Amino acid sequence: MKTETPEQPARKKRARHPRKSEAPGTLVSDPNAPKPVIHVMGYGPEELHEEEVHDVGALAAMCGKWSVLWVNVDGVGNAETTARLGEIFGLHRLALEDVTSVQQRPKVESYGEYLFVVARMIFPDGRLHTEQVSMFLGKDFLLTFQERPGDCFDPVRERIRKGQGHIRQAGHDYLAYALLDAIVDSYFPVLEDYGERLEDLEQEVITVSDERTITSILGTKRDLLTLRRTLWPMRDLLNSLLRDTGAHFTPETQIYLRDCYDHTFQVIDMLETYRESASGLLDVYLSSVSNRMNSVMKVLTIIATIFMPLSFISGVYGMNFNPQRSPWNMPELNWYWGYPFALTLMLLVLAGMIYFFRRKRWI
Amino acid sequence: MKTETPEQPARKKRARHPRKSEAPGTLVSDPNAPKPVIHVMGYGPEELHEEEVHDVGALAAMCGKWSVLWVNVDGVGNAETTARLGEIFGLHRLALEDVTSVQQRPKVESYGEYLFVVARMIFPDGRLHTEQVSMFLGKDFLLTFQERPGDCFDPVRERIRKGQGHIRQAGHDYLAYALLDAIVDSYFPVLEDYGERLEDLEQEVITVSDERTITSILGTKRDLLTLRRTLWPMRDLLNSLLRDTGAHFTPETQIYLRDCYDHTFQVIDMLETYRESASGLLDVYLSSVSNRMNSVMKVLTIIATIFMPLSFISGVYGMNFNPQRSPWNMPELNWYWGYPFALTLMLLVLAGMIYFFRRKRWI
Amino acid sequence: MKTETPEQPARKKRARHPRKSEAPGTLVSDPNAPKPVIHVMGYGPEELHEEEVHDVGALAAMCGKWSVLWVNVDGVGNAETTARLGEIFGLHRLALEDVTSVQQRPKVESYGEYLFVVARMIFPDGRLHTEQVSMFLGKDFLLTFQERPGDCFDPVRERIRKGQGHIRQAGHDYLAYALLDAIVDSYFPVLEDYGERLEDLEQEVITVSDERTITSILGTKRDLLTLRRTLWPMRDLLNSLLRDTGAHFTPETQIYLRDCYDHTFQVIDMLETYRESASGLLDVYLSSVSNRMNSVMKVLTIIATIFMPLSFISGVYGMNFNPQRSPWNMPELNWYWGYPFALTLMLLVLAGMIYFFRRKRWI
Amino acid sequence: MKTETPEQPARKKRARHPRKSEAPGTLVSDPNAPKPVIHVMGYGPEELHEEEVHDVGALAAMCGKWSVLWVNVDGVGNAETTARLGEIFGLHRLALEDVTSVQQRPKVESYGEYLFVVARMIFPDGRLHTEQVSMFLGKDFLLTFQERPGDCFDPVRERIRKGQGHIRQAGHDYLAYALLDAIVDSYFPVLEDYGERLEDLEQEVITVSDERTITSILGTKRDLLTLRRTLWPMRDLLNSLLRDTGAHFTPETQIYLRDCYDHTFQVIDMLETYRESASGLLDVYLSSVSNRMNSVMKVLTIIATIFMPLSFISGVYGMNFNPQRSPWNMPELNWYWGYPFALTLMLLVLAGMIYFFRRKRWI
Amino acid sequence: MKTETPEQPARKKRARHPRKSEAPGTLVSDPNAPKPVIHVMGYGPEELHEEEVHDVGALAAMCGKWSVLWVNVDGVGNAETTARLGEIFGLHRLALEDVTSVQQRPKVESYGEYLFVVARMIFPDGRLHTEQVSMFLGKDFLLTFQERPGDCFDPVRERIRKGQGHIRQAGHDYLAYALLDAIVDSYFPVLEDYGERLEDLEQEVITVSDERTITSILGTKRDLLTLRRTLWPMRDLLNSLLRDTGAHFTPETQIYLRDCYDHTFQVIDMLETYRESASGLLDVYLSSVSNRMNSVMKVLTIIATIFMPLSFISGVYGMNFNPQRSPWNMPELNWYWGYPFALTLMLLVLAGMIYFFRRKRWI
Repeated sequence: MKTETPEQPARKKRARHPRKSEAPGTLVSDPNAPKPVIHVMGYGPEELHEEEVHDVGALAAMCGKWSVLWVNVDGVGNAETTARLGEIFGLHRLALEDVTSVQQRPKVESYGEYLFVVARMIFPDGRLHTEQVSMFLGKDFLLTFQERPGDCFDPVRERIRKGQGHIRQAGHDYLAYALLDAIVDSYFPVLEDYGERLEDLEQEVITVSDERTITSILGTKRDLLTLRRTLWPMRDLLNSLLRDTGAHFTPETQIYLRDCYDHTFQVIDMLETYRESASGLLDVYLSSVSNRMNSVMKVLTIIATIFMPLSFISGVYGMNFNPQRSPWNMPELNWYWGYPFALTLMLLVLAGMIYFFRRKRWI
Repeated sequence: MKTETPEQPARKKRARHPRKSEAPGTLVSDPNAPKPVIHVMGYGPEELHEEEVHDVGALAAMCGKWSVLWVNVDGVGNAETTARLGEIFGLHRLALEDVTSVQQRPKVESYGEYLFVVARMIFPDGRLHTEQVSMFLGKDFLLTFQERPGDCFDPVRERIRKGQGHIRQAGHDYLAYALLDAIVDSYFPVLEDYGERLEDLEQEVITVSDERTITSILGTKRDLLTLRRTLWPMRDLLNSLLRDTGAHFTPETQIYLRDCYDHTFQVIDMLETYRESASGLLDVYLSSVSNRMNSVMKVLTIIATIFMPLSFISGVYGMNFNPQRSPWNMPELNWYWGYPFALTLMLLVLAGMIYFFRRKRWI
Repeated sequence: MKTETPEQPARKKRARHPRKSEAPGTLVSDPNAPKPVIHVMGYGPEELHEEEVHDVGALAAMCGKWSVLWVNVDGVGNAETTARLGEIFGLHRLALEDVTSVQQRPKVESYGEYLFVVARMIFPDGRLHTEQVSMFLGKDFLLTFQERPGDCFDPVRERIRKGQGHIRQAGHDYLAYALLDAIVDSYFPVLEDYGERLEDLEQEVITVSDERTITSILGTKRDLLTLRRTLWPMRDLLNSLLRDTGAHFTPETQIYLRDCYDHTFQVIDMLETYRESASGLLDVYLSSVSNRMNSVMKVLTIIATIFMPLSFISGVYGMNFNPQRSPWNMPELNWYWGYPFALTLMLLVLAGMIYFFRRKRWI
Repeated sequence: MKTETPEQPARKKRARHPRKSEAPGTLVSDPNAPKPVIHVMGYGPEELHEEEVHDVGALAAMCGKWSVLWVNVDGVGNAETTARLGEIFGLHRLALEDVTSVQQRPKVESYGEYLFVVARMIFPDGRLHTEQVSMFLGKDFLLTFQERPGDCFDPVRERIRKGQGHIRQAGHDYLAYALLDAIVDSYFPVLEDYGERLEDLEQEVITVSDERTITSILGTKRDLLTLRRTLWPMRDLLNSLLRDTGAHFTPETQIYLRDCYDHTFQVIDMLETYRESASGLLDVYLSSVSNRMNSVMKVLTIIATIFMPLSFISGVYGMNFNPQRSPWNMPELNWYWGYPFALTLMLLVLAGMIYFFRRKRWI
Repeated sequence: MKTETPEQPARKKRARHPRKSEAPGTLVSDPNAPKPVIHVMGYGPEELHEEEVHDVGALAAMCGKWSVLWVNVDGVGNAETTARLGEIFGLHRLALEDVTSVQQRPKVESYGEYLFVVARMIFPDGRLHTEQVSMFLGKDFLLTFQERPGDCFDPVRERIRKGQGHIRQAGHDYLAYALLDAIVDSYFPVLEDYGERLEDLEQEVITVSDERTITSILGTKRDLLTLRRTLWPMRDLLNSLLRDTGAHFTPETQIYLRDCYDHTFQVIDMLETYRESASGLLDVYLSSVSNRMNSVMKVLTIIATIFMPLSFISGVYGMNFNPQRSPWNMPELNWYWGYPFALTLMLLVLAGMIYFFRRKRWI
């Protein structure tokens, strides 16, 4: 799993401040965006209809046809499609603008007739990558927008198709809950990957760490911070769904939302634990750098402390004082046991040094 | 007491996100789970009935037979048993799902007729290990689930059997309090063990610390953090029991709950004090690494500073300038006292260096 | 983009405590201030009037002439002009004093008839530089003050002139919103510049960092802190506009304000992420200093550890013990293979050292 | 003043979790506890009665005899005495259990008829040592428990005996206030001692610091943290007395309580300032360790940088190339001024080095 | 501007816990205190009376004589004077005790008839020095106490004397506001001094820092912390004046108080910015110590790495192997180009080393 860095240039090009001279609520088309794919699921306890819609206008006739109508749009770059959808379902243009500018924080906004929910889902696809999911929960429709094809909603679709659980018996609000729950659950495997990465780093930091290690630790920390900036608003989102919007959610679904809210707590607990671990790793890293410096210094000191006195002794007996001139001038040079005496002296110094280092517990 | 690390792989296998394609509220059986053991205690002021129940259906007839009915289930891996219990006592399937997915944070949820409480108890058995305890407090039953046999409830059972205190006179709410109190009290000895471990580390860090020491400090810090993530929700749990649920607890039991709430404060106080100690130890560790580096450097510097000038002097008198060629070429070599002069010079340098180090307070 | 330092002396001269002996509410003229430029825009759905006004008195007649009247004043140093404007529009002198002392935090104050809003806008002109914008939102006027010519309002003016969006249909409150929105949006490009600067520093810190690097990191941190001190009150300002002042903003405009409030959240998210990055950079910097010290020490230790033993050997065979006096006195000197033996001995020591360093992974 | 360490083993023996198998509300006798001493003061504006009571039963007759009845019990280890007192004054057994288990946090609990207050007082007797004081404030009695004889209440007793202030005119609530005020004031001298200790450490840390210094700083930090954990609940206690319990305190006494509440703010201000100082000291300590390492390294570098080149020069002229073989082989050895030339060369190198160090400001 | 240290002993002598055995509300005289100076200003729109009063009793007749009566007392050490003033104006003795014990935090207390306000003012006189100002705001008087002569109220007095602003038209509440405003404004120049000091330290820390630098940084940090402990309660004080006390302040004065409240925000913003700067300086300091250590180490390593190999070469050719004994024994010594060969070898080693250092960017 790579850190977020490679994605940042891309994000920067998608302008974060899209309208220098546009009026607020203006929808801007991205000319490179692929055509949005509109997928419709209509179902009730006994019926199920699934269709890919190519003509947006056809949706108007679908409202109310089944007990639940889920319109999912993959791709938000086409302003015209988005605007037409807005007309058909009667959506505010500011909400539509938030749909197209995909850097929104998770939030929930009530527009009276319908709720507007922005969430962010994540893919366990090898890099940190979140995608904005916008939902409009109206009385007779649930309209969702994603940035691009591919999502974490397949289990929900399967449940609808197979009639598992009571999703077919429940209404739009339960479907909205099920999607939010799928989004929250999509964070678990990603966070577990970070947990494993941190365990690997923990090994690395003690054994063979270098500057890549600290870059890696800090990259992980930054990723976790990015996740945190997504997850706390997700929790707030669920909390305000729980508290504020009695009209849109039935009491039964409220109980499910409370469960989903608990899941965000669990995700955030994992996240905060990993963030603490990453901070701890930084401490270990810095202390292991110090420790290695210490051991380098010890080797140097041992070598210098042993060989400097020995070299000094050999240096003394390399002096050229003239023994012929006086009996005091280096008589050792002419002793019978002179050389062995010097070597013995050196050995004694060596033994003393080794004893000293042993006592200091350096070797 | 080992750190939590060995337990983590086990936890990872028990999936944290149990239903990729399951509807919420689906109970998943763990095929390796042992058969749950159901232990029933029914009692009143004058009566006491204790029984191990093998047929779940028999429980239906027991409700209301004694003034208090406590059904304790050891083992949550068998979906069928859990589901049948849910039917008999009329429990919501989301609550039952929380019973089986054992990574819940402590929390309390009101389902109208009954309260659902999740707590985590701890064993002082040599490793950090918390176990989820789920409680359903209804009008005529108290149903508790544990992950596996063995708990901290034996003192409560003894009190029931011997009729100590007024537990036999009191109702289900008092029993629920007594169990929560036993759970909170189970944290004290564990925390005291951490306190002793920190005292040992405090000794170690000053005397013989190496990289295992910092790993050990950080392991302790992480364990305390894990405990913190359990204990703060425990406190919130008791606080919301105190505030929110007048219908389930009598005023008399409320006073007992307040006492239990105070205990969580005491546990958390101990915990936070130990966390501060652990952070302090990290500071001591890092500064003792620096200090040891300092003392290594001093030894090196003393040795080098003494022997480099001495070696230089011996080097000078080892030069081969020809004294025969000029009276200025190393006349010392031919002095009568040349060698003693050189040695004296060396001794003076040595004395000067020692004086210098003394003044610097290095030796 | 330079750090704020060069601007600080300038700010210091503009006194932060303007009235040592003045009564509160006294307006002080800055004798060096240029004459304020008053620009008037009056418009309605069908009409548009734009004018530069030189006689302040002429404004009195303009109130109510168009459905929206926007009076923009560039330059606040002229006390007389400000005071006359205050008289014409019936403004409190304390608010006027805040207009002229340009170190105000963003805030909103209700004076009954009109709202007084202080915001700070920013220019992406190469240095961190915020400018106070004061707004009076009355029933039939919007009066804005800026410190000097040049602002981020041109897109709004263009929209008015071209009738884009529904600004021409809306009232003074929408105009006030549009200006605040333009101010908030002006922070995005500035923050993105800081983001790029941090990416550059990230490269620099690993490769060629020196003390300028840390000064640069800390300068960036300080700039971000300064922005933070501006942006959090901006958020509070928008929050209190949303909550408190139903009378001044129509429900429709409230929805726009909520959108603008969301933008402040996005800006603050970016800001906090960059602040974390800057703190992370500091950690990388300190650890890269330690790492470089480590590698310097390794070179020293390798050199010393190799050459000290070698020099010792050469020192031994440079001693002058007299081989003629005894067979024990340095017989090696007279061996046939004496010199090759010494060189071989040295090579063996060298090989041993290199093996030792390899095993320690130092080379 | 020693740190808390010596007290900790004692505290550990006094079990923090006193009832493994006891019902809550059970009072446990400490067999080694001395017999409690019960001291009674009864007084009114005109009367004063002081007595040491040996038979607990005698207290029942005393209630209502004087306008104020203060029963002070020294020693809480005797369960029987405590239980009898509880019966006579009608106290809840959970409160009595809190009286005997002396590790309570300061708190206030209302039991309807009477208030139960737990505070902690401190002695300036050379070590950090807090003692639990439990108070029952009823309509016609004030009952206080202390762990052992000796307290900070003598000034209050003196005021009662001498009739100073209006304590003799006031009721039980004022007496309770006076005792709490005495307890809060007992923290001031202790904190001032810590302030002086920190000033001493500030001197030490710059001059002669070693590992004891950091242990001492951290010990002080831990003591201050312990005090903090006592003082914040004391403040909360006074705050809830101020807010919650109109029935127990007269408006006049409320004013006095507010004053006492202010004192807790002052104590906490001192405490937090000292905590910041202690953290600052840690920074100074670490930086002074670094600085000393720096100066050690400088000495080493200066010595090595001076003597290595000098030794190299002497080494060159100690080579044994044969000058007889060629005019290029070390002609210096036979120069007339050879030796002075070499010495001069060395002096020049030395001067160059000293100039270099001067420019680097190392010497 | 010196740090607070010199003042601390003085403060310690002025006892922080003034009444060991005194009843609360007892006023203690300081025998060394100078006689308090009582200055009276009575004024209305048309009249102005200024007088120094020596007989406290004369004040009783002055109440109500002018529309505004301001009694300012310099010196609080004389218990008798303070007590007489209390009697005349009907003040509570606890408030009077707070007047005399001059270590109070800023606060506001309502005593029904009158407000009691404690603030702290500061002098820009070269050291950090705050002085307690106590105010009693009654219906027909404003009574202020200062610790000693000299204050920041002269601009207010001038405005009264000259009738500037509308202070002569306004009541006691406006006067109280004007004094509080003067107090808040007195912090601006002091904080600007700290700002300049921090800029100086910023220069120093990079160029010539030693241990005095860190002491200076930490002293500044501590001073700023002390100011913080004063300013936050000042803000709370103004906030509670704004919110709580409609009866004492007219709506018009409330607007002025809100302005003053804004000023406390500005002061606190400056303060917090400087506190961040000081923390940043500490980081720069520590990193510049590391950097300097790094550069010291580099010099050492360069010197050692150059001269150790060179000395080794010279050592080799200083060995005394006998060339006469074998053609393998140091034939170089007898080469014609032996000495130039050795010198060239040394030069090559030197060049190699310099190339190595260049590549490592060390020189």
